[in-house]
Amino acid sequence: MKIGIIGAGSIGSLFGGYLAYLAQKSAVNADMEVEFFGREDHIKAINRGGLKIYTQSDIIEVKNIKGYTGIREYKKAKNKIEEDMNNSSMYLFLSTKTYDMKKALREYASLTEGAKRVIILQNGIGNESVVRQFLSPKKIIRIITSNGAFLFEPGKVRHTGEGYTKIGAPFVTSGSLSITEGEGSVIRESAFEKEREDIQQDLIVLKNLLTVAGLETSISENIIRDSWEKIFVNIGINPFGALTGLKNGELIEDPHIKALMGDAVDEAVRVARAKGIRLSGSEFKALAYDVASKTAENKNSMLQDVLKGGQTEIDFINGRIVKYAEELNMEVPINRTVSYLVRGLKKS
Amino acid sequence: MKIGIIGAGSIGSLFGGYLAYLAQKSAVNADMEVEFFGREDHIKAINRGGLKIYTQSDIIEVKNIKGYTGIREYKKAKNKIEEDMNNSSMYLFLSTKTYDMKKALREYASLTEGAKRVIILQNGIGNESVVRQFLSPKKIIRIITSNGAFLFEPGKVRHTGEGYTKIGAPFVTSGSLSITEGEGSVIRESAFEKEREDIQQDLIVLKNLLTVAGLETSISENIIRDSWEKIFVNIGINPFGALTGLKNGELIEDPHIKALMGDAVDEAVRVARAKGIRLSGSEFKALAYDVASKTAENKNSMLQDVLKGGQTEIDFINGRIVKYAEELNMEVPINRTVSYLVRGLKKS
Repeated sequence: MKIGIIGAGSIGSLFGGYLAYLAQKSAVNADMEVEFFGREDHIKAINRGGLKIYTQSDIIEVKNIKGYTGIREYKKAKNKIEEDMNNSSMYLFLSTKTYDMKKALREYASLTEGAKRVIILQNGIGNESVVRQFLSPKKIIRIITSNGAFLFEPGKVRHTGEGYTKIGAPFVTSGSLSITEGEGSVIRESAFEKEREDIQQDLIVLKNLLTVAGLETSISENIIRDSWEKIFVNIGINPFGALTGLKNGELIEDPHIKALMGDAVDEAVRVARAKGIRLSGSEFKALAYDVASKTAENKNSMLQDVLKGGQTEIDFINGRIVKYAEELNMEVPINRTVSYLVRGLKKS
Repeated sequence: MKIGIIGAGSIGSLFGGYLAYLAQKSAVNADMEVEFFGREDHIKAINRGGLKIYTQSDIIEVKNIKGYTGIREYKKAKNKIEEDMNNSSMYLFLSTKTYDMKKALREYASLTEGAKRVIILQNGIGNESVVRQFLSPKKIIRIITSNGAFLFEPGKVRHTGEGYTKIGAPFVTSGSLSITEGEGSVIRESAFEKEREDIQQDLIVLKNLLTVAGLETSISENIIRDSWEKIFVNIGINPFGALTGLKNGELIEDPHIKALMGDAVDEAVRVARAKGIRLSGSEFKALAYDVASKTAENKNSMLQDVLKGGQTEIDFINGRIVKYAEELNMEVPINRTVSYLVRGLKKS
């Protein structure tokens, strides 16, 4: 079985690395091949000396990953060794930054077409709808994870925090056995029981693979809801840190900024409900405060991106709320203000 | 006649400097004494070599200013030369940064009590209400000016742009001859014709003094309205530049930020109307865009303050809109978001 990682950065390298290591050490999974597609320095380091995963207690050395810097290099290598170009991936992970998603889907179209399942392993909400513009909805799997990873040096990734992982097929509702438009509305109710069983089977395989590889994983009946529930925290924290330069703890120490953060989450919750997302609770504002408090000393990832002078994922966090609100003719002034200000931030 | 300048920074030094120069060169105004209160380096430079005003075409050397770094130094000097401590100012200008206004009013209470008129020469809206907490409303005069000044070196101020100057008594309405609460509501209608005439007379004297000194000045019948109409431009530009780092021209090139800027102005206009300010027009949003376009290459003053790691005047610009909106139970989400974000900006 072949597994590909498109955009092998921090989180992609963590997931792909654990899977490759499973193949390396286990006879049962020895047929699993893992291929990485990523940035030149990282890929070169992996091809030279393997990938090292730094866990809390250990350093895992993964030697059986084949790395490529892009589709052209991949095709050239495959031709050279006269291997069949059509030995498609069973699972192809998409773990680029969200703002590079479309670019990656275009570049790797020949791989995504051949792959049986394309797995979105990214931050943000609405990513599945973007991927769907390129691929059959039945092919799309989504992962939501709270595992933290940090690529601190080419070839070396740190597992910064263990957490949960949820997988699910965003366009397949289990109840009605139908393919949905995503986020609620059913577009096609038909007898595709067989397809649904096949998807379900592949989810189980993936869940077991990830779990034995060391990432405890569950199958979610509503992975889109999970993506929303995870993003509320980012909506309430990230742009506020990015715009002020404050650490998470400093943000909630300021009562006015804390109130703004809460209002941003409330706006997002209203949009979620208006889109028919059936949320499992209502305490998302409190959750955002709680996460900010528990990570008081952290500069959030969006602030880090800003400090590095890089692009942010704002368009898939607060920016999505603004986009959905416009479609629904709702007002989300706090999200609108912070989204456009973060996008406008002068790159230094 | 004695004139004092509390907070002789850029704009205070420009006004005070021109008045002192008028006394220096004109026999008619030779009795005018000008005293500056300001930062040590600036005051020392003035006491040593005078103040230099750099106009577009000339350098004016003003030699007759007496400078003091604070009230203690002033009292000591006065005692030493056995001069009467009660030789009060006719006109005492308050030209500190708005956020230092209260501190200055406390420090210089002995001077403001003696002064006949205290003249607010500051950015912002609502400043007169702050001053009124310390002084009789009849004593208060307000100046709105579009003249630009920049203290580029101790003792050296550049007149960066000539413009209009308007003066008026914010708590005296000319129509009803009454003292108002400010911003609309009349609190006392009484026969104080004589006081009103005295104020009117002092306004005329001041207008003439400033005009012959080189700052063309008019008397405004509604100086509070003028302060609002001037601040709308700052409301629409300043915090957006401060938060993004963008120049004025870059702000309006971004259609989303441009829309936010316009919404911030609209919110402020609604608050002004709700407070009973009778605005003379409605094109304040267009005016903000126009000013941003004409100053495309400028980093606005609030952004400059942020880049210097200093305090900003946000509380007297957008922050005032938020405060008034709360009192009126109105929603001003754009102004609220940018006000609190600017206040939260990490000082670097």
